[in-house]
Amino acid sequence: MPSEPEDLALPHIRGLSAYTPGRQPEGEGWVKLNTNECPYPPSPRVAEAILAEVGRDGAALRLYPNPPAAPLRDALARLHGLAPGNVCIGNGSDDLLNLLVRAYCAPQESAGFTVPSYSLYPVLVGIQDGRCEAIEFDRSMRLPLARIAASQSRVLFLTSPNAPTGVGFATAEIEGVLDAYGGLLVVDEAYAPFAGEDAVSLVPRHPNLVITRTFSKAFALAGLRVGYALGHPATIAVLDRIRDSYNVNRLSQAAALAAVGDTEYYRGVIARVRATRDDFARLLTGRRNWHTYPSSANFLFTEPRDHAGKAGPETAASAAAFLESRRILVRRFPSHALTAGFLRISVGTNEEMLALDRALDAWSAG
Amino acid sequence: MPSEPEDLALPHIRGLSAYTPGRQPEGEGWVKLNTNECPYPPSPRVAEAILAEVGRDGAALRLYPNPPAAPLRDALARLHGLAPGNVCIGNGSDDLLNLLVRAYCAPQESAGFTVPSYSLYPVLVGIQDGRCEAIEFDRSMRLPLARIAASQSRVLFLTSPNAPTGVGFATAEIEGVLDAYGGLLVVDEAYAPFAGEDAVSLVPRHPNLVITRTFSKAFALAGLRVGYALGHPATIAVLDRIRDSYNVNRLSQAAALAAVGDTEYYRGVIARVRATRDDFARLLTGRRNWHTYPSSANFLFTEPRDHAGKAGPETAASAAAFLESRRILVRRFPSHALTAGFLRISVGTNEEMLALDRALDAWSAG
Repeated sequence: MPSEPEDLALPHIRGLSAYTPGRQPEGEGWVKLNTNECPYPPSPRVAEAILAEVGRDGAALRLYPNPPAAPLRDALARLHGLAPGNVCIGNGSDDLLNLLVRAYCAPQESAGFTVPSYSLYPVLVGIQDGRCEAIEFDRSMRLPLARIAASQSRVLFLTSPNAPTGVGFATAEIEGVLDAYGGLLVVDEAYAPFAGEDAVSLVPRHPNLVITRTFSKAFALAGLRVGYALGHPATIAVLDRIRDSYNVNRLSQAAALAAVGDTEYYRGVIARVRATRDDFARLLTGRRNWHTYPSSANFLFTEPRDHAGKAGPETAASAAAFLESRRILVRRFPSHALTAGFLRISVGTNEEMLALDRALDAWSAG
Repeated sequence: MPSEPEDLALPHIRGLSAYTPGRQPEGEGWVKLNTNECPYPPSPRVAEAILAEVGRDGAALRLYPNPPAAPLRDALARLHGLAPGNVCIGNGSDDLLNLLVRAYCAPQESAGFTVPSYSLYPVLVGIQDGRCEAIEFDRSMRLPLARIAASQSRVLFLTSPNAPTGVGFATAEIEGVLDAYGGLLVVDEAYAPFAGEDAVSLVPRHPNLVITRTFSKAFALAGLRVGYALGHPATIAVLDRIRDSYNVNRLSQAAALAAVGDTEYYRGVIARVRATRDDFARLLTGRRNWHTYPSSANFLFTEPRDHAGKAGPETAASAAAFLESRRILVRRFPSHALTAGFLRISVGTNEEMLALDRALDAWSAG
């Protein structure tokens, strides 16, 4: 038995790299377009619900939360036209993605995911000591259907709309994957509320589909960590068997429930984000002539060109560094050839996008 | 590849039983002495801190939380006379126990824990497909030091004070275990604030020690899910590598930080709980003559005798059922011979304990 704490951890854990979240700066004055948060506050009902739960003296906080978050399951089932048995709640959708890896990826066996996509998937597979089956996109960013269908992995993760590209996939394409692939398909719909279509209608007739959703983007509650999974009741039962029995705290349950009850407010938020996104996309592709993928999400993935017309990883790094010097944060993904020359820009308010546009003008002027 | 969702999960996951949390009843009027929550509200500073974080419109909630919960680590390091590098924050201490199993128990290999103790440990080892090395107490409930020392498990969990017995272990005994055992010793100190001593002073000189703590008991914040681990920086680095980067939400971080800042308030809470506990223990052992372990925690573990003087599992079940009919909840642990004849009674307010005492009188009267 090794006696140094470094050596006591399991061998595969010792060599792991942690997931790197986007920078969360301290202090005021940042235009934060790097982690796809919502630029608008949550529904006013959220603050009301939290205050009601806290009460005068916080006495309710001394009691454990509702273990299955039952009222929230019921509300989400109604929202999506499904049954409560189709819904599981997580401490962010990351919690559910982690549980899915634990339940469906054995050590030394493979889990599939498309690349480029959410960089948490390989981290979760690594923690499980699983093998990563990376299914590569090409520069078109269209779904590599044949390669997914050929996968022998027991579980496969697909982000739709994809990140960091923003490219959306048609429900018919997702159904094509479900018909062709024999394992559990996890469709990570973190950004689906900003898209024209989603795969929820496929849940009742495809037992091998699980959809994950989050309150962090369209619901403007990244700070509260609530996500959910939609799937066949047998899959939901598996998640319930291995999740922490109190995985979602009282205030997050109350806040998420209030948010689900105010679809009218969020319809407005989503419409504003989409309008700003589409306006800014036109600026990027039109006036700047930068290659920018059509986005179905709340961010844009664009390939900047410098004053000499040059694109590539160095250009993207230069643009990001210049923006950061102006206290504007965007995100780069330098580790993959298809993403290294790009910036991922979260859609902010119109004022924030105007500030970004001016800063990009200044950078372009060299 | 199996195509039914039941069959897609890994074989060891299909056969698992979930952890069963104590009942969280809906509605008012319950005397809830079944899950060791604090009978008093949290520090008034907690509600203030939550309200400040929510602000007028909840706008801060749209942003992700501080990934490492850095201000809370700093405050806990100061509280315990350690460095921030000795502290990791979890979504409840269950989150950290789960991470410790993932990092230190390989599938098919063993993890050790004492029995009876916290029934989550075998569930976590089961999810990991590990083997349970159960180290049995005898009815004295004294630490089985020789058997722990002989363990070949890479990681071993010890609850101190123990649950559900409440029996505390001397720091010198814990140090004896650390000297004798070659793996990582996790001392689960969920109830240590109610005890006379704890093992925190051992952290700097025993690299194979990790202590877990929770805000759910003495800090009266079970509803917010915050726990922490204290250990060697190399062990903390392992936990940080595999935890979710946003595992603790904004409001829970703010609340816990406010609680840590009000030690004066909590000193009073703990003193009241201990006084009530010791008074009620005297009633049980004296007037009722029920075998009751000396408790260093916020609960009592007692062996009820019926009007005929009979003890045992049926007697305990009868007492618990009678109490529940009076809307008083206590907890039973029927699955182990050393616990099946007992009730675990959380320490409530003096009024709640009086109501319990009267109900027990009525039950004893047959």
